[in-house]
Amino acid sequence: MNENLDNWEIVRFNGIESSISYEEIAEEFPLTIILNGKEFATMVCSLSHIEELIIGFLASEGIIRYMEEINTVSIDSNRGFAYVELHREVDATQHDHSKRFIGSCCGKSRQFYFKSDVKTAKTITSRLTISVEQCYNLMKELQVQSEQFKRTGGVHNAALATPEGILEIRTDIGRHNALDKVYGYVLEKKLSLSDKLVVFSGRISSEVLLKISKLGVGILLSKSAPTNLALNLANDLGITVIGFARGDKMNVYTHSHRILEVVQESTENK
Amino acid sequence: MNENLDNWEIVRFNGIESSISYEEIAEEFPLTIILNGKEFATMVCSLSHIEELIIGFLASEGIIRYMEEINTVSIDSNRGFAYVELHREVDATQHDHSKRFIGSCCGKSRQFYFKSDVKTAKTITSRLTISVEQCYNLMKELQVQSEQFKRTGGVHNAALATPEGILEIRTDIGRHNALDKVYGYVLEKKLSLSDKLVVFSGRISSEVLLKISKLGVGILLSKSAPTNLALNLANDLGITVIGFARGDKMNVYTHSHRILEVVQESTENK
Repeated sequence: MNENLDNWEIVRFNGIESSISYEEIAEEFPLTIILNGKEFATMVCSLSHIEELIIGFLASEGIIRYMEEINTVSIDSNRGFAYVELHREVDATQHDHSKRFIGSCCGKSRQFYFKSDVKTAKTITSRLTISVEQCYNLMKELQVQSEQFKRTGGVHNAALATPEGILEIRTDIGRHNALDKVYGYVLEKKLSLSDKLVVFSGRISSEVLLKISKLGVGILLSKSAPTNLALNLANDLGITVIGFARGDKMNVYTHSHRILEVVQESTENK
Repeated sequence: MNENLDNWEIVRFNGIESSISYEEIAEEFPLTIILNGKEFATMVCSLSHIEELIIGFLASEGIIRYMEEINTVSIDSNRGFAYVELHREVDATQHDHSKRFIGSCCGKSRQFYFKSDVKTAKTITSRLTISVEQCYNLMKELQVQSEQFKRTGGVHNAALATPEGILEIRTDIGRHNALDKVYGYVLEKKLSLSDKLVVFSGRISSEVLLKISKLGVGILLSKSAPTNLALNLANDLGITVIGFARGDKMNVYTHSHRILEVVQESTENK
């Protein structure tokens, strides 16, 4: 077998007919973040937009809120280390944050949730509205732009968008990383998000929903399914969750008042 | 909106036509494991086979290797706590394990990988073989049996199987949890795995691959894509990885000598 990152020699079966083929494989890259000289966390990720990932991750974890809090970020991608220096010290409880995590998908502690998340999760009051047609178009655009997914099948995509179109797309083998990259981009560019939404390929867990809330986005549009915990949070935090957006079908789970057709219908009924 | 766990009132769009509908949503349940009186980890999971999940998780983390090491497991599912007492003390470094994790999908530390995993990951020497037809049938069986996935779209499935059919299937919103439930089942039943394989719905990350190695299974058959890190590990650990098994197509990425058709072809060529 070939250990080249992009091309693996595989045996491809079509029925019982086999052929040797070369296939591109999604890369999984371990990255350790050293925060103010201390090991903070190690993640596996895709090697793109690493600085955005680090900034978004630290913001998601409640360590920073603005770019100005960061003094330097230096990345040693050969060894898989990133060194982040803040302008202030990080207190011990923050360094201890990851003790509560587990390595499962969507792993998130209740204690962590109640402590750090309540500090940073915001109730969304965005007045942004979107039409059903715009949702279908955005999801199509995400798929068209997801070249890496089409080639490897092993990555997730998160995009920042307006109802009119996608602004920036980020890709990662971890769906939370893809969202953190978007978060990092937003902080670096100091963007206002009241007129923007997130278009996403992955399932909507409570952790995904909390990231959307921290970003301050009022609409989450995804190809995939939500969990009940995510929907309860979305209800509480004022976020419109649209799931199973595929072709010309979609489900609106929460706060449907941001969907133009729903608004029109309820106005007509008055 | 309805907060009932199983039935959410949603607005379903088909084109621009909308209707009110009730949909079952995958449940996301936070569970904290207290090990020998100390908080060990919190995960979110689906509320089924919780004892297997706990046992499999502790084994995956290298805390236990056999059921006999566990004195008691008691589960308080109302409060979301599980209390595990071992027959021995857990040393501080083991309690510290989760410091290295992060909350991303597939999050896994290199340090953790090198320390705890090397202790438990095994090179697989299984002589089990399987035909291509058997692979297609097993994947079909997994899908047919995955009722919850069909209803909610929000869960993953892992099954223990022989080439002739599926033995046990486990479901969870976290794909690692589904595998840990299988692991717990195997430990509880003290099963030998040399003649068994795992059939899986999720993507094959390095963490998934390491769980397969710890289980001691020689063949992993999945509907989804692998990462390069997982394939490098599979090469090293002697595990046959089959991915993208859909309908009557599949890709064999590593150790194809366990596929009957490959063996026959190489014999014919001699």
